[in-house]
Amino acid sequence: MTIDRRTLMTGGLATLVAAKRVFALSSPNGSVAKATTSKGAKVFHLVAEPIKHQIAPGLDIEAWGYNGRTPGPVIEATEGDRVRIYVTNKLPEPTSVHWHGVQLPNGMDGVAGLTQKAIEPGKTFRYEFTFAHAGTFMYHPHADEMTQIALGMMGMIVVHPRGGPTVARDYTLMLHEMKVPIGARRPDPLAMNDFNVLTINGKAFPATEPLVAQVGDRVRIRIGNLGPMDHHPIHLHGHSFELVATDGGAVPASARIPETAILVPVGTVRVIEFVARAPGDWPLHCHMTHHTMNQMGHDAANLIGARTDDVDAKLRRVVPDYMSMGTAGMDEMSTMHMPQPANSISMVGGVGKHGPIAMGGMFTVVKIRDRLGTGDPGWYDDPNPAREATADELARDGIKID
Amino acid sequence: MTIDRRTLMTGGLATLVAAKRVFALSSPNGSVAKATTSKGAKVFHLVAEPIKHQIAPGLDIEAWGYNGRTPGPVIEATEGDRVRIYVTNKLPEPTSVHWHGVQLPNGMDGVAGLTQKAIEPGKTFRYEFTFAHAGTFMYHPHADEMTQIALGMMGMIVVHPRGGPTVARDYTLMLHEMKVPIGARRPDPLAMNDFNVLTINGKAFPATEPLVAQVGDRVRIRIGNLGPMDHHPIHLHGHSFELVATDGGAVPASARIPETAILVPVGTVRVIEFVARAPGDWPLHCHMTHHTMNQMGHDAANLIGARTDDVDAKLRRVVPDYMSMGTAGMDEMSTMHMPQPANSISMVGGVGKHGPIAMGGMFTVVKIRDRLGTGDPGWYDDPNPAREATADELARDGIKID
Amino acid sequence: MTIDRRTLMTGGLATLVAAKRVFALSSPNGSVAKATTSKGAKVFHLVAEPIKHQIAPGLDIEAWGYNGRTPGPVIEATEGDRVRIYVTNKLPEPTSVHWHGVQLPNGMDGVAGLTQKAIEPGKTFRYEFTFAHAGTFMYHPHADEMTQIALGMMGMIVVHPRGGPTVARDYTLMLHEMKVPIGARRPDPLAMNDFNVLTINGKAFPATEPLVAQVGDRVRIRIGNLGPMDHHPIHLHGHSFELVATDGGAVPASARIPETAILVPVGTVRVIEFVARAPGDWPLHCHMTHHTMNQMGHDAANLIGARTDDVDAKLRRVVPDYMSMGTAGMDEMSTMHMPQPANSISMVGGVGKHGPIAMGGMFTVVKIRDRLGTGDPGWYDDPNPAREATADELARDGIKID
Repeated sequence: MTIDRRTLMTGGLATLVAAKRVFALSSPNGSVAKATTSKGAKVFHLVAEPIKHQIAPGLDIEAWGYNGRTPGPVIEATEGDRVRIYVTNKLPEPTSVHWHGVQLPNGMDGVAGLTQKAIEPGKTFRYEFTFAHAGTFMYHPHADEMTQIALGMMGMIVVHPRGGPTVARDYTLMLHEMKVPIGARRPDPLAMNDFNVLTINGKAFPATEPLVAQVGDRVRIRIGNLGPMDHHPIHLHGHSFELVATDGGAVPASARIPETAILVPVGTVRVIEFVARAPGDWPLHCHMTHHTMNQMGHDAANLIGARTDDVDAKLRRVVPDYMSMGTAGMDEMSTMHMPQPANSISMVGGVGKHGPIAMGGMFTVVKIRDRLGTGDPGWYDDPNPAREATADELARDGIKID
Repeated sequence: MTIDRRTLMTGGLATLVAAKRVFALSSPNGSVAKATTSKGAKVFHLVAEPIKHQIAPGLDIEAWGYNGRTPGPVIEATEGDRVRIYVTNKLPEPTSVHWHGVQLPNGMDGVAGLTQKAIEPGKTFRYEFTFAHAGTFMYHPHADEMTQIALGMMGMIVVHPRGGPTVARDYTLMLHEMKVPIGARRPDPLAMNDFNVLTINGKAFPATEPLVAQVGDRVRIRIGNLGPMDHHPIHLHGHSFELVATDGGAVPASARIPETAILVPVGTVRVIEFVARAPGDWPLHCHMTHHTMNQMGHDAANLIGARTDDVDAKLRRVVPDYMSMGTAGMDEMSTMHMPQPANSISMVGGVGKHGPIAMGGMFTVVKIRDRLGTGDPGWYDDPNPAREATADELARDGIKID
Repeated sequence: MTIDRRTLMTGGLATLVAAKRVFALSSPNGSVAKATTSKGAKVFHLVAEPIKHQIAPGLDIEAWGYNGRTPGPVIEATEGDRVRIYVTNKLPEPTSVHWHGVQLPNGMDGVAGLTQKAIEPGKTFRYEFTFAHAGTFMYHPHADEMTQIALGMMGMIVVHPRGGPTVARDYTLMLHEMKVPIGARRPDPLAMNDFNVLTINGKAFPATEPLVAQVGDRVRIRIGNLGPMDHHPIHLHGHSFELVATDGGAVPASARIPETAILVPVGTVRVIEFVARAPGDWPLHCHMTHHTMNQMGHDAANLIGARTDDVDAKLRRVVPDYMSMGTAGMDEMSTMHMPQPANSISMVGGVGKHGPIAMGGMFTVVKIRDRLGTGDPGWYDDPNPAREATADELARDGIKID
C-alpha cells in the first residue's frame, strides 16, 4: 500500500499526526512478534508447538500454535526489509511455513516436499528473504496443512510502506473456525462443516477485545481468513467502508466499492477502511447466523412451538432441575442460568448495557467515541435509545395494536 | 444511488418516461409496507408474529414474520425522509429490529442488549431516524437472530433518490433458505447445512412470480440475502449485467464489472442492472445445483446405474405401486406421478411450454417481450427453438451417430 | 476480450510474437473439441454419455460426460463465428445443453421444458447461433441438472477475439467436486457437502498436469466452476494477479484488483492474468483445506494426542499389520505405506523434489522457468531452498532453542 494523498486528506491524517493521534498497529487479543536486528536483517523466531489456549472463559482447548499462541504473533516489517525467520518445530510431526502472498524466491515458499524438505520434529529451519512490497500477508504450515491449520497454526504479516502510517487506527483480525465437541478439549481436524467455535484472533465473543476509534479517525482493519472451510461475510454496523487492499496489493481508487459487509474467503486478506462516523458501540461480525453463536447442540430436536410441560413435570420427579429448552426460541439460553457442561461455553454470552446480547463467536464491537481516553471505554450510553412507545405516541401516530 | 446521466441515456429512460413506461418498485410475491404521515415523519408499523405461510402449493409452514408475511413488507422511502417505525412483538420471546446498512444514531441500531433493551413479548417499541442516503437496505431481528431469521423474519428497505426513478423496471428479491424435514411444518433453526427449502421472496419455484420487462428496458434487481448460512451465486441467462450498488452505496462506473452470475453473500445486498436484450423466458436462479431443487431425501441410497427390476417385482407383490426411483437419474421425478408425502413438494416442479422444467427452489424467470401488456405474459413462444436434427441436416453436416 | 494495448505492452507480447513464443489455448489433462466447417458454420458434435474416468491412478469412476470425457472438450471459436452444435443423447434419461454466459436467441438457451423439449435418450438435437462476443463461457445440461452435473457433465467454451492472441500462455481449468464413498465407483448425486473428490479438469493431484510458463510470459488462466455446491478460493503462490474477465465480458482496467487468491463461485468464470515473475514450482490450489485432500474417512475418531500403543499391541495379535493413525497429525498418511482400500486414493499423494507433498485434490503447479523446452520441465531445483539452520547461524543471530 503506498501513501495516497487522497487518503491522507480524507482522514485528516495530517491533523491527526500533528495531534499525535496516530496509533501503532494493534492486534486485539493478539501480539506482535519480537524482532532483533542482526547483520542487516530483521530476525524473528517462530516456535511451532502444542499449546493450551482459552477461547473464552469456560472453554480451554489443546491447540497447536506459534510462540505459545493461536494465532501466532503478527510479523511486522517495513517495505524493503531483509528478514531472517527461524522456525523451530516442537510438534509431534513435520511442519513448514508458507509466507502467503509474499513475492519471494521459490526456495523460500515453504511448501514441504515441493520447495523444501519438511521441518522434522526438533529441527530449526531458516528462511531468509526481502519484503519487496508493503501489504498484509499471512503465514501458515504447508505440511499436513489440514491438521495443522485446524488446530490453530496461522498468523498475519504486516509490511508497512516507507514513509510512515497513513491511517489513525490500524487493526489486524484473523478469522478462524474449529469444531470442538461439547466438553472436549481437542479441535477435530476432520471436521468439514458444523464448526461451533468461531473466532477473531483466537477468541469468541464475549472474550473478543473491542476495537476503538475517535469520531473522524480513519480506521483500517486488515482481516485474514485462515479457517479451514468457510468464507465469512464480515458486517460492520452503521458505516460504509471500502476494500482498499488484498494480500495481492492496493486496490486503486477507481476500483473501490462501498460495502457494509465484505466476504473474506478462506485464504484471503481483505483490508478495509472507513472514517469513524458516529459515536456508539458498532458490532463487527460474521453475518452467517450460526457463526455468531458459541458451541451448540445441533443434534437437538427442533422444539419450537412444542408443548413440553407434561414431559418436564414427569422428568422433574427424577431430575429436579430439568426443563426443556427452545420451545419458544433460543432467547432463554441467554437469560436463564442453566448448569453449563464442563469446559464449554454458552451458545450466546455477552451482557451489554441493556441486558444480554444474544451473540457469541465471530463477533466484536467497534467502540467509537467523541473523545477517547486509554483502554476500553466501556459500553456506550446513547442519550436516546430505541424504547417502548408511550400510549400518547401510539395515539398521535394512529398506531393500533390488537 | 444518485441519478446518473449515463444510466439515463443507456437505458433510454427519457424516452420511457415520455411513454409512461417507468414502473413502480415491484416485489414479486411480496408487498410494500403501508405508511402514513404524521408530524413530519413517515410512520410504519411492523408486527413481529408467528404466521402460516405457503412456500408453494403443497407445502405450508409455521413461520415467524412481519405483518403476516415472510419476508416482511418492503419499507419504501425517499432520501432525506424522517421515519418513525413502531415494532410490536407478538412472538413468544424477545425481539428487536436492526436496520442493516442504514447510517443512523447508535441508539436506533437495534441490537438487543447492546444498543437497546430487547422488546419483550406484547410490547411495542418506537424507532425514529432519518434516511440520510438513498439505497437498498434490509431489516431483521438482532435478538436470538439465529432462530428468528431461520423462521423467516427479514425484509428489505428501498430508499429512492430525490429526483425520481432512474430505471424502467425496479425489483426487490430477498433470498432465504430453510430446512423443513419432509412432512414437517416447522423450519429447523438448528440446521447449519442441507437446506431443502430455498426461496425468493418466500416462494420456491414454480410458485415464484416472474419478473417482466420490455426489450430495451433498463432493469434493476435489488437482491438481498438473509438466509442463515449460504452465499448464493445468482445467474441470469442470456444477459450480462453489472453490480451498480450494495447496501453500502453506489458502485462508481469505473468499478463496474460485467457478470452473468453474482455471488450474494449472507448479509449483503447486490443491486444489479442490465438492459433487456432479447425477447424470451430467461431463468434467474441460484447456480448451486441443490438450490434449484425442492425438498429431497438426501438420506436416500445412490441408485444410479443399479438394476432394481427384481427387487421391484418382489416388492410389488406387497405394495402394488412400488417402483425404485433414481436408477437412471432424477428426471423421472419430474415426469412420473408419484404419490407425494403429505405437506411436501416435489423435488422439481415447473411445467413450461415444452414440458416439465426440472427445477425448483431458488429459481424464477425474467420474461422479456417486444411488447408487454399487463400481468404475466405466459410462456414465450420462440419461432425457432432447438429441436431434433433431421437426417438431411446430419448428412449435410457430416454428423455420424453410432 | 478485446486486444488491449496496455496488455500487449505489459506482457511484451509483440516481442513474444516475434520470437514465436505465443502458444495455443491449452487445457491441461483436457482436450479441445474437433470442428468441421459446413455451409458457413463451424460444426461441433457433443455426445452425452456414460463414461469410465480415472480421477488419479488408483481411482476409477463411472461418470457421465461428453465425447468420452469429463469435463467435455473445450469448444473453441472466434468472435462472430456462426456455430452449429449437434448434441446426441446416449444417457439413460433426457438431457439438454445450456450455453452458459452466451448471448443467444432464447430458443437456443437449452433449458428443457422452458425453451426447448428435452433431448430424449437416443435423439440428436441441433443448436445454431452466432458467438457475438469474445470471452470464456461454459456448457452444461439444464435437465436434471443436479444429477447430470454431479456425475461430470460440463465443459468450457473459449471465443477468441478477432485479431489474434493477447497473451503468451492461455489455459482453461474447470473445477468440480464429487462425493465418491471409499471403494465406490459412482459419484453420489444427492451429496450436498463432504465432497471428497476435488478436481481440476477432471483430475485430482498428483494426477493434475502442471501449467508451464517462461519468466516474463503474460499468463492467462480461465477458471470455470461447475461443481455442485462449493465456491472455491483459488490461490497462486508467489504472484499477484488480476481478474481480467468473467463470462459477462472484460473487466475494464479501472476495475481491476490485485489478488493472490480469487473466489470462483459455482456457476461463474474467473479469467485471471499475471506476468510470470520468478522461476520455480508455484502451487495453484483451492485454499479450503479439505479441498487439497483426497478421499478421507471423515467418520474417523479424532485421535490427535491420544495414546494408542496398548490398543495397537492388543489388536496386532489378531491383525498383525494394525496401527492407529492420526495420533500425531495426518502427516504419517503421506509417508507410511498403508494398504490402500481397493479403488481409492490416499488422502494425500504427491512426491516432489524434497519428499512427500501432503496435498491432493484441487491442487496443481505452475512451473515457471528462465528457459522452457517442450513438455513438463520436471521439478524445480532452487539453488538456495529453506534448510536447517546451522549452529553457527543460530549463535550469530542469537536464537536460543530450549
